Amino acid sequence: MTDKKTALVISAHAADFVWRCGGAIALHQKLGYEVTVACLSYGERGESARLWKEGKSLDQVKSIRRTEAENAAAALHVHDIQFLDLGDYPLNLGQEAQERVVDIIRAVQPRFMLSHSQYDPYNTDHMRTTEFVLTCRMIAQAWGHNPGQKVLGAPQLYLFEPHQTEQMGWKPDTFLDITEVWDQKRAAIECMEGQHHLWDYYTNVAQNRGNHFRRNSGGQAGGRAARYAEGFQSVFPRTVDEL
Amino acid sequence: MTDKKTALVISAHAADFVWRCGGAIALHQKLGYEVTVACLSYGERGESARLWKEGKSLDQVKSIRRTEAENAAAALHVHDIQFLDLGDYPLNLGQEAQERVVDIIRAVQPRFMLSHSQYDPYNTDHMRTTEFVLTCRMIAQAWGHNPGQKVLGAPQLYLFEPHQTEQMGWKPDTFLDITEVWDQKRAAIECMEGQHHLWDYYTNVAQNRGNHFRRNSGGQAGGRAARYAEGFQSVFPRTVDEL
Amino acid sequence: MTDKKTALVISAHAADFVWRCGGAIALHQKLGYEVTVACLSYGERGESARLWKEGKSLDQVKSIRRTEAENAAAALHVHDIQFLDLGDYPLNLGQEAQERVVDIIRAVQPRFMLSHSQYDPYNTDHMRTTEFVLTCRMIAQAWGHNPGQKVLGAPQLYLFEPHQTEQMGWKPDTFLDITEVWDQKRAAIECMEGQHHLWDYYTNVAQNRGNHFRRNSGGQAGGRAARYAEGFQSVFPRTVDEL
Amino acid sequence: MTDKKTALVISAHAADFVWRCGGAIALHQKLGYEVTVACLSYGERGESARLWKEGKSLDQVKSIRRTEAENAAAALHVHDIQFLDLGDYPLNLGQEAQERVVDIIRAVQPRFMLSHSQYDPYNTDHMRTTEFVLTCRMIAQAWGHNPGQKVLGAPQLYLFEPHQTEQMGWKPDTFLDITEVWDQKRAAIECMEGQHHLWDYYTNVAQNRGNHFRRNSGGQAGGRAARYAEGFQSVFPRTVDEL
Amino acid sequence: MTDKKTALVISAHAADFVWRCGGAIALHQKLGYEVTVACLSYGERGESARLWKEGKSLDQVKSIRRTEAENAAAALHVHDIQFLDLGDYPLNLGQEAQERVVDIIRAVQPRFMLSHSQYDPYNTDHMRTTEFVLTCRMIAQAWGHNPGQKVLGAPQLYLFEPHQTEQMGWKPDTFLDITEVWDQKRAAIECMEGQHHLWDYYTNVAQNRGNHFRRNSGGQAGGRAARYAEGFQSVFPRTVDEL
Amino acid sequence: MTDKKTALVISAHAADFVWRCGGAIALHQKLGYEVTVACLSYGERGESARLWKEGKSLDQVKSIRRTEAENAAAALHVHDIQFLDLGDYPLNLGQEAQERVVDIIRAVQPRFMLSHSQYDPYNTDHMRTTEFVLTCRMIAQAWGHNPGQKVLGAPQLYLFEPHQTEQMGWKPDTFLDITEVWDQKRAAIECMEGQHHLWDYYTNVAQNRGNHFRRNSGGQAGGRAARYAEGFQSVFPRTVDEL
Repeated sequence: MTDKKTALVISAHAADFVWRCGGAIALHQKLGYEVTVACLSYGERGESARLWKEGKSLDQVKSIRRTEAENAAAALHVHDIQFLDLGDYPLNLGQEAQERVVDIIRAVQPRFMLSHSQYDPYNTDHMRTTEFVLTCRMIAQAWGHNPGQKVLGAPQLYLFEPHQTEQMGWKPDTFLDITEVWDQKRAAIECMEGQHHLWDYYTNVAQNRGNHFRRNSGGQAGGRAARYAEGFQSVFPRTVDEL
Repeated sequence: MTDKKTALVISAHAADFVWRCGGAIALHQKLGYEVTVACLSYGERGESARLWKEGKSLDQVKSIRRTEAENAAAALHVHDIQFLDLGDYPLNLGQEAQERVVDIIRAVQPRFMLSHSQYDPYNTDHMRTTEFVLTCRMIAQAWGHNPGQKVLGAPQLYLFEPHQTEQMGWKPDTFLDITEVWDQKRAAIECMEGQHHLWDYYTNVAQNRGNHFRRNSGGQAGGRAARYAEGFQSVFPRTVDEL
Repeated sequence: MTDKKTALVISAHAADFVWRCGGAIALHQKLGYEVTVACLSYGERGESARLWKEGKSLDQVKSIRRTEAENAAAALHVHDIQFLDLGDYPLNLGQEAQERVVDIIRAVQPRFMLSHSQYDPYNTDHMRTTEFVLTCRMIAQAWGHNPGQKVLGAPQLYLFEPHQTEQMGWKPDTFLDITEVWDQKRAAIECMEGQHHLWDYYTNVAQNRGNHFRRNSGGQAGGRAARYAEGFQSVFPRTVDEL
Repeated sequence: MTDKKTALVISAHAADFVWRCGGAIALHQKLGYEVTVACLSYGERGESARLWKEGKSLDQVKSIRRTEAENAAAALHVHDIQFLDLGDYPLNLGQEAQERVVDIIRAVQPRFMLSHSQYDPYNTDHMRTTEFVLTCRMIAQAWGHNPGQKVLGAPQLYLFEPHQTEQMGWKPDTFLDITEVWDQKRAAIECMEGQHHLWDYYTNVAQNRGNHFRRNSGGQAGGRAARYAEGFQSVFPRTVDEL
Repeated sequence: MTDKKTALVISAHAADFVWRCGGAIALHQKLGYEVTVACLSYGERGESARLWKEGKSLDQVKSIRRTEAENAAAALHVHDIQFLDLGDYPLNLGQEAQERVVDIIRAVQPRFMLSHSQYDPYNTDHMRTTEFVLTCRMIAQAWGHNPGQKVLGAPQLYLFEPHQTEQMGWKPDTFLDITEVWDQKRAAIECMEGQHHLWDYYTNVAQNRGNHFRRNSGGQAGGRAARYAEGFQSVFPRTVDEL
Repeated sequence: MTDKKTALVISAHAADFVWRCGGAIALHQKLGYEVTVACLSYGERGESARLWKEGKSLDQVKSIRRTEAENAAAALHVHDIQFLDLGDYPLNLGQEAQERVVDIIRAVQPRFMLSHSQYDPYNTDHMRTTEFVLTCRMIAQAWGHNPGQKVLGAPQLYLFEPHQTEQMGWKPDTFLDITEVWDQKRAAIECMEGQHHLWDYYTNVAQNRGNHFRRNSGGQAGGRAARYAEGFQSVFPRTVDEL
């Protein structure tokens, strides 16, 4: 692990990082982390319905989606955003993509990583991304992969909140209070012009996760007054010095 | 939550707290916690085979088991140990037991609680204890239960390591480094005269959990050099300010 | 099954039916069903924190909770609401309660039933209610229980939405469009004076379940424009003439 | 373990042992086992619809069901059948029942036990029986329970096939070839006058489990030509000298 | 969704659609649906043991299997059957296959789709087909995939009954009464000359699923007298106006 | 099945067979089996940290790892060990690898096979190997794959013990007493120079699995005095003549 505090988000489509962990990004930037976002695709074919209905071309769609994502990243004070342009629906997660993502992981040396749920029957890009990320994390840990490079430690992989959590078998074990950066997250959300119908949806999610935060930090007996939160599922166990 | 740092272990039989969380107890005492252990029974009928083979009477068995548990508690510097004497195989977890355990919970106001796995086909006392503990925790949180008493907040319930973990569906999400208190845990283990066959068993467990600690805190890339650890499964999600 | 269209809600505490299936109740009343609500307790000890903080007595709390529930039932046009007053935290689900609930089931002869999720570590009253309801349903089906009474058919048991769905292992398989009765549900919610913090929470839930309804009824390709919905998990398989 | 080969079936209602493990009983009798069947109830209220429709009294129903079960047991050459008459829908599984079943287990000293699936939303008697059996098995193993009696070893508990297996989460890991005793099983089935609709159902089951036996013993490449089989789920791991 | 009622079956090998959903096909044709069957392979290598034992060549096997499937399709009054000839054991589910299946989905615009269980350790072709179908369904929904084509709505994906259901983790939530088309299904089954050993197997299945239909539509209290049924597991939640 | 007793181990990396089933191998050789080990890779990149830290080249690492594995195989009296050299982190499990492994399976005609757990987020090579093995087993069973070759029957696939069992969802259902070959397994373990930190780890595992063997073969009542054991999870059900 580097002395620098770093984190890495791997987002299947350009907008995922905004809805699902925009608060975590903004908060950790505030805490002194450098957060890198890697967008595997722009979500150009599958998550840009409005633009296609307007008759935009593929290049236009990608360009608009990229701009939206960059604006959202700026609102969240993202340290670095990278677009791998792997195509979507489906993502092309072949060997070249793998090499590139391993390089990013090793360059960033994240203290923790963020990606999708392990199952998603609505969107197999999401679940294939997670398995791909686990493979890349494993390769980045291998001393025999590009010997001489700094190998990866054992960062946590947090799975951020999918749409329709219950259908994905996603169960959050960690709630993060994002109250103080909520305005930034909402601003980032509002950069997503093409998905207007999700703005209030994810505001509702954040408010209700705030309720879950309060309920688990003390409930009626007086827990922290978090108003907005995000939920995460950990893939790996934690190692601690105090319970 | 009180200002005092407190924790509460609820152990179905007198020895469970030693094998399963003796390290956590000793460590948290060292960290300034007051750890209370509530033994629901002495494990007199079901977990004292050697004494029965020697022809001891029920009262003798209970007395010997109590002494062993007290000695182990002393080795771990337990703040307080209480014996509810509810009988074992099976435990009598009726209304009176419930009132007593709720009273203990409210008196202790634990920051976290420890108990058994949620399933155990070998030992239904264990799994019934966990459901019982969840019920008592719920009652202790109720403003209308003995109004005027201080209600409980929302402490985590950690499930400590059962025997034959995989058969119990128990999956640890938290590893605690107990290296610095290992000698105390081993000393407590050696108080359990009647279960000699488990001394090395749980030493092996602690060493191997130490390996898991290292693997998850950094792996080959150099994590903490924990030599002994304990694993725990959290029932409730955590609420955090940083991932 | 009777010719009359009937449904039965079994609610552990007085307010559960409002948050969790108020829309389903109002809608089915509108569709010509007679919906009966059986409240096993008032939630007097465990779910009335505000009243206890105000210094109310047990009888006062129960009376206030009953009035709130009756008002909510009226807002939803509930056909009949019954209070079994079994005590809460924990519920007393002994033999007498069982006889009474079996009698209600047989009297109502519901086409479908509604109750809680099968697991709830925060609130064991909820999960014990569901097992209790399954037992009562089974007894009501027995030709040898009070011979001469009309036996129960095989109504579906829908599990309504718990708080923190993912922690309960609850997965909805059915979304009901409650847009046209939303105002009634909101009015019923506002009868719950003691749980103000949940009004907006369950409004958010209803809006987001509306999104799930749309996503599953046609998505971007143009499904029904439901704005509010409720989710349910079926215990039993459906029998159909067309997929 | 005794030198005698013995087995114990614990059946919630009088007929369960016939449909679910009649073949295993007949086969093991043939193999020199003494198989004891303990019927916790006659299934008088819940599984005797035809008799109640005919206007029989409770005593008549119990008597008829007992005779049917005794006839079936005879057809299977059961060593011993015991009726505990605990009532059904629901079973009364209190302390007295527990003492009696523990006594039976210790008297029989079974090499293996047979009982119901661990979940059954249609029939909570079934699932409560299984948890009850696990508790009784545990007590029978306790050196401090009725000291001086021979304690139980660690017999496997096989869960026999429930109705609608998939709804019960039951997954067979063992198929037993019952071809050579099929005629006996069918004869026993035909003793169940009140449940005619299940005769062919369980014949179909036996034939299809025969197919599963063949498929898993060699498939198209030529496995054993079993024509009838029964499936079982093991609760505990096996201990072997050869894989 | 089109005004035409259409459905699409995606069958890994040529015979799967017969055993697993032949009744659903015949019934929906009768209800006015146009049902298309896409056979990804002929099951030529892996499911034609008898033909290989007789010394047939690959082309002969494929031709015979195709004829059998066409005959079965005719017996079921299938609207259209397409053979993709992707090879079996294993299927070649690469990009070209994907394009072709997406085209079929978009051309058919099915109200519902049918395919395999999500897990099958005996036959990985089956489980890979299901993941492939989910990916193709997702692509068919994407506005940016072949813009100008009509995009897919959100049809249900039903998973039809696998062989050895419990090993596949398959749990039916929907039973369809196929009594009135049973003769057609049996006729289609009898077209499968090479798999004689399965004719009675799937007749037994249909009869026993008929029992499940009756049990869930009213049980002893008098449900529909279905004699033959098929079971299905839904991947996605339903959206309804009445419970 | 051949008359010869044979078994096949498929190991993702060169050392896996030693830690995870070295005892089973040595024991079955002693029982007259011919055990073949197929190492898909040398684990050269991902499991040879020490060698890379010492500055070895790729060829050197592979050569050293091969020698270690051969030495371990000799200590276990392995009948045949084959190195497929598919590369690791990740394994290249394409069509060529598939053909080769199917050929090995058909040549060996194993009575049982051994491979990895079905899930492993730390090491996706492991879980991809298991799915790959299931596919190869299926192809080896196909009469149309290389007609004329002897097809495979239906051998059990045992999943050997992964590192951190609970994280992998691995649950052993079979314990094998390896006491009499323990010295051989320890000798094989000590051939693994590069993974010194695992020697005692897997000795602890073997001792504790010995405890599990004893507990399940008779417990306190006196089961077999196994001192070392290995655990395995079966993928397929067993077919038996006696329970």
